[in-house]
Amino acid sequence: MKKALVIFSGGQDSTTCLFWALEKFDYVEAVTFDYGQRHKAEIECAVAIAKDLGVKHHILDMSLLSQLAPNSLTRNDIAVDEKIPDGASVPNSYVEGRNMLFLTFAAVLAKVNGINNLVTGVCETDFSGYPDCRDMFIKSLNVTLNLAMDYNFVIHTPLMWLTKAQTWEMADKMGKLEYVRENTLTCYNGIKGDGCGHCPACTLRRNGLKEYLGS
Amino acid sequence: MKKALVIFSGGQDSTTCLFWALEKFDYVEAVTFDYGQRHKAEIECAVAIAKDLGVKHHILDMSLLSQLAPNSLTRNDIAVDEKIPDGASVPNSYVEGRNMLFLTFAAVLAKVNGINNLVTGVCETDFSGYPDCRDMFIKSLNVTLNLAMDYNFVIHTPLMWLTKAQTWEMADKMGKLEYVRENTLTCYNGIKGDGCGHCPACTLRRNGLKEYLGS
Repeated sequence: MKKALVIFSGGQDSTTCLFWALEKFDYVEAVTFDYGQRHKAEIECAVAIAKDLGVKHHILDMSLLSQLAPNSLTRNDIAVDEKIPDGASVPNSYVEGRNMLFLTFAAVLAKVNGINNLVTGVCETDFSGYPDCRDMFIKSLNVTLNLAMDYNFVIHTPLMWLTKAQTWEMADKMGKLEYVRENTLTCYNGIKGDGCGHCPACTLRRNGLKEYLGS
Repeated sequence: MKKALVIFSGGQDSTTCLFWALEKFDYVEAVTFDYGQRHKAEIECAVAIAKDLGVKHHILDMSLLSQLAPNSLTRNDIAVDEKIPDGASVPNSYVEGRNMLFLTFAAVLAKVNGINNLVTGVCETDFSGYPDCRDMFIKSLNVTLNLAMDYNFVIHTPLMWLTKAQTWEMADKMGKLEYVRENTLTCYNGIKGDGCGHCPACTLRRNGLKEYLGS
């Protein structure tokens, strides 16, 4: 039986990956990382979708990442405030290499559950610019994980080279465009579906949808 | 200025690495991972040595690793007990890939502090048998970390191919044999220095010292 674990945030990309995995594998689980997201609505969204699709859902507490955030370190181990100050655009728990840490935690979780396929919605084409979302990094990490745990992990990145319009197309071909549009949360202001309409994430998502729908 | 961060447990191996780093680099910091060790004495030992040597010392809380321990996962997300049951030989927070997670956390910490050299006392020669202590893994991880963070990390493993006797020899050549013997803690029963004398860690350590001293 082919089993997969999907790294799942409840956003458009990872939800599309979850549908992709459900088509491709015999058995699918999902994992969400709780690291003090801007909006608890993101986690709630992920929980609701996993429940809706009947997928076993792990939520891992990553609050200790805040220990590594530059603004807590540079203040020399003061108490870390996980709350986001009004108007701040990035949680103070952001750390470099975060995606690598998440994927490594996911790999440990997968192996414990007898799962060797990992699915992540990382993408070189979008505007994130994080080095640990690049294809070359993912391939190197795959080798490192296999050496670290003597296990045959395969990391799948179905969105790696897609534009946002092509990600919408992928959801549509699986008959899930409306589901993804209505039930996922990408918006920086924590609004599900089409979102606030003006933050960068909403703009990217809407422009992709417009491009795909040809309007 | 050449800077290094030493992964430091307060045991024989990592303390020898700390002395090695202090000889080789212009500036050295140390990091210890608090993951529910059998004995708080291990952390106290690390703190005392770092203070004694005037090395800036980071202690990172890794309690979330317990979420990944098989015995907490298989019981389906029950509350995790970080205390070690009487007579248990392995903390229930042990997880595969742990060394990979520690080194990755250390790398993030190092970069935030402008440090690109990482020093770890992992060793293929001793009896740990953990795949994420092997030389091939460390080299693969080095590449992956550099890709993950666009940074020029260099991972140093001065003990990789040494026997325990050769590690004692290395400490002796730096004039630190007595210091390491008296101030480090390796013993499974939490006793500093020569330890309880009969656990596997004490046996390995004592046999290495006997072999080096030629007695």
